Amino acid sequence: MAQADIGLIGLAVMGQNLVLNMNDHGFQVAVYNRTHQKTKDFINGAAKDTQIQATYSIEELVGQLKSPRIVMLMVKAGEVVDHFIQQLLSHLTPGDIIIDGGNSRYIDTNRRVTELKAQGIRYIGSGVSGGEAGARNGPSIMPGGETSAWPAVKPILQAIAAKAEGQACCQWVGNGGSGHYVKMVHNGIEYGDMQLIAEAWQLLREGLKLDDDTVADIFKQWNQGVLDSYLIEITAEILATKAEDGSLLVDKILDSAGQKGTGKWTGISALDTGIPLTLVTEAVFARCLSARKAERQRAASIFQKSVNDTISTEQETIIQQIHDALYASKIISYAQGFMLMREAAKEYGWSLEYGNIALMWRGGCIIRSQFLGEIKQAFEKKPQLENLLLDDFFAQAIQKTESNWRKAVIFGIERGIPTPAFNAALAFFDGYRSERLPASLLQAQRDYFGAHQYERIDRARGEFFHTDWTGRGGNAASSTYQV
Amino acid sequence: MAQADIGLIGLAVMGQNLVLNMNDHGFQVAVYNRTHQKTKDFINGAAKDTQIQATYSIEELVGQLKSPRIVMLMVKAGEVVDHFIQQLLSHLTPGDIIIDGGNSRYIDTNRRVTELKAQGIRYIGSGVSGGEAGARNGPSIMPGGETSAWPAVKPILQAIAAKAEGQACCQWVGNGGSGHYVKMVHNGIEYGDMQLIAEAWQLLREGLKLDDDTVADIFKQWNQGVLDSYLIEITAEILATKAEDGSLLVDKILDSAGQKGTGKWTGISALDTGIPLTLVTEAVFARCLSARKAERQRAASIFQKSVNDTISTEQETIIQQIHDALYASKIISYAQGFMLMREAAKEYGWSLEYGNIALMWRGGCIIRSQFLGEIKQAFEKKPQLENLLLDDFFAQAIQKTESNWRKAVIFGIERGIPTPAFNAALAFFDGYRSERLPASLLQAQRDYFGAHQYERIDRARGEFFHTDWTGRGGNAASSTYQV
Repeated sequence: MAQADIGLIGLAVMGQNLVLNMNDHGFQVAVYNRTHQKTKDFINGAAKDTQIQATYSIEELVGQLKSPRIVMLMVKAGEVVDHFIQQLLSHLTPGDIIIDGGNSRYIDTNRRVTELKAQGIRYIGSGVSGGEAGARNGPSIMPGGETSAWPAVKPILQAIAAKAEGQACCQWVGNGGSGHYVKMVHNGIEYGDMQLIAEAWQLLREGLKLDDDTVADIFKQWNQGVLDSYLIEITAEILATKAEDGSLLVDKILDSAGQKGTGKWTGISALDTGIPLTLVTEAVFARCLSARKAERQRAASIFQKSVNDTISTEQETIIQQIHDALYASKIISYAQGFMLMREAAKEYGWSLEYGNIALMWRGGCIIRSQFLGEIKQAFEKKPQLENLLLDDFFAQAIQKTESNWRKAVIFGIERGIPTPAFNAALAFFDGYRSERLPASLLQAQRDYFGAHQYERIDRARGEFFHTDWTGRGGNAASSTYQV
Repeated sequence: MAQADIGLIGLAVMGQNLVLNMNDHGFQVAVYNRTHQKTKDFINGAAKDTQIQATYSIEELVGQLKSPRIVMLMVKAGEVVDHFIQQLLSHLTPGDIIIDGGNSRYIDTNRRVTELKAQGIRYIGSGVSGGEAGARNGPSIMPGGETSAWPAVKPILQAIAAKAEGQACCQWVGNGGSGHYVKMVHNGIEYGDMQLIAEAWQLLREGLKLDDDTVADIFKQWNQGVLDSYLIEITAEILATKAEDGSLLVDKILDSAGQKGTGKWTGISALDTGIPLTLVTEAVFARCLSARKAERQRAASIFQKSVNDTISTEQETIIQQIHDALYASKIISYAQGFMLMREAAKEYGWSLEYGNIALMWRGGCIIRSQFLGEIKQAFEKKPQLENLLLDDFFAQAIQKTESNWRKAVIFGIERGIPTPAFNAALAFFDGYRSERLPASLLQAQRDYFGAHQYERIDRARGEFFHTDWTGRGGNAASSTYQV
């Protein structure tokens, strides 16, 4: 008895596959699921002829574990996590470790780490990405929380994680909810990557009117170059998959995408911290708009497309423009994502290693790509890099693609094909490299109607001015009533 | 004693001006401010020779008021409001009324209405917009909360409010935090309007290279047409205001805009409710980007503009294109804002009168405009209008401006002038009128890597399908682990 290395609660697809993965690597795993039948089915099915031990109560589960006990939760984020923590507390002893491997909100993880520390329990909130296949064969794992627990869980988590460039795609992220925060940003970026691919697809088929096989081939080719990534790879496969009637299967799929969870949390965190994460946010909103299918159908009957539809440029040239727009926009999206993590680290007191984060995303997870190897290198060269766009490699990549990127966006606009993420990326870039923005006018307006005051470019920062624009202004300062 | 109609706490600029406005309309007002000197300065200054009564404690303030007592808070949103509520509670009696006229978050107002109802106190959360001049001469007032309190406060609030088309720009919004919610959306739209004007300004001066006087004149002209609004009017005045050295004053102003508060709350609410409020959110992010001045300067030295700068079209034509882009984008922004209020009303159980909301914004507030009269009419014609874009007037306005709008956006993109709000609006429109969006590909990807399942266009909604895309997939359903 009491010889299992780890206990895992929650046998949905991700939990089952992680357990099998751990078993493959020689770890003894005890499992528990609220619905006992699921446990039985698993033990008699996928887990048959393994060392995996079924248990049918929390007490039994905990009783199977070596000390310090390690229990991993793979349950639905939210109250369910708190529920299991409460149940575990009466059976664990100080020094034991709980890992939450679900998509919990970092705010909850911040709270749980602190609350459980007060009770002697070491808590880790860990993002796990890679879908079902990743969980089975090597996911990306992003653990953070109580740092003293890392040596105890490291051998298991690094063993089951994906490997990239000879290293495990699992490194210690930092204290508090930082692991879940990094996973959240990962998911936000995933929303962005998917939206970018969708926009490129629509430009190719609706803009260039290419046939399905050609489009699938283009994605296959793109996967050989700088866009080499899991999402491009599966897109090529999806776009080559036919339905029963021989037409493209994806064309039978309802064009209404869900978006509850980590994507919107990423956008909310960006708004809260004041980081212009425009691309991911547009990607989340694009899903929201897609969900209004019936309303879009009504609108389509009123607003017919009467746009320029002639193509005067070589097809190959336009395909390259779309490719470059996708690549440049992707660079912007990751630059924004790292800006966000940097700001969050400052706000929450985490010390994040951005090169390590890129390494963790390099393999195993949904956004894995060759591209992340370049990001890793950028942060290895300069760990305090202010912005990815200021790194030589990425700056040159942008400079090389900039002209084509603009042309692809214009190509979409002329044809009424929506490319919200491409557009947002380009507008961000043009703002980012503008020494002077028209925000001076906003400040003037705010001072005009609300006496908000402004700073001047020819005076020191922190010195504030107010103009009586109308000659009728009062004297009261606007200190408590800010827009 | 005990003869004042209303007591007001908080004598910053908005508070002082509201008090003077009430006094002008024959109401007896008692005032209190935490710092007594401010009260004395007010009474001996702006309030000299009025009926306004100074008080120097909460007890004294409450003692001056007729029953049911009405106390209005014009203090900083957040804990300060709760602080004063607590202080007031020991002096008020059941049936008394507290109005919070600050920029409180609607979530707080929702809570306060309920908490205070339990103690017999009737609570109103009311947005007040119009800046210092509006507060003095007639602001827009958006009260919501405990409905039974409306008749008691209506005579005061409607008397001091702006008037538009013969009606007071103050109508009962609804229960709970609905008044502050509507004010929040107002402020979000204000962010959007300001950003749109800033983008148009940059296109005119940097794109068309027009001189300052010509640009100021253009805004003056625009204020005579469909763009007629307070913000366009003050923009024309600002752009005609010179600094000491004779150059444009706005060019001395630091191009770094603040954005803490209602703008970001609006974006957060949009993400939370799943409404694609893209324009306001881009406007908030544009302010965030503007605030990174030093970083932008570094980026500007790396990414020099090498873009097409020749102008082959008539100047007048391009000015009209920019005008139309501003107008069309503004329609999109308001359509998105009303979508958001509609969804929030559903979520929080408010029954909002959209025509009344347009009326309240028609005069007094920062976004007041002729345009809001058209919105009022649209909702009067059809109170259950699904979307502003489906109204005849606005649909025709979009159809008329669409082609020019596209050209103006392209004009900016070709020149590297960032127009994030124009672009976001256009991308939204092109998505909104798309019967078919590439979200089907997103759904396929999610099913591929996460077994998330999808619906089909040739089957009933609610029926879900999963494809084993690789031929290697497992059977476990992805019920608990959703991206």
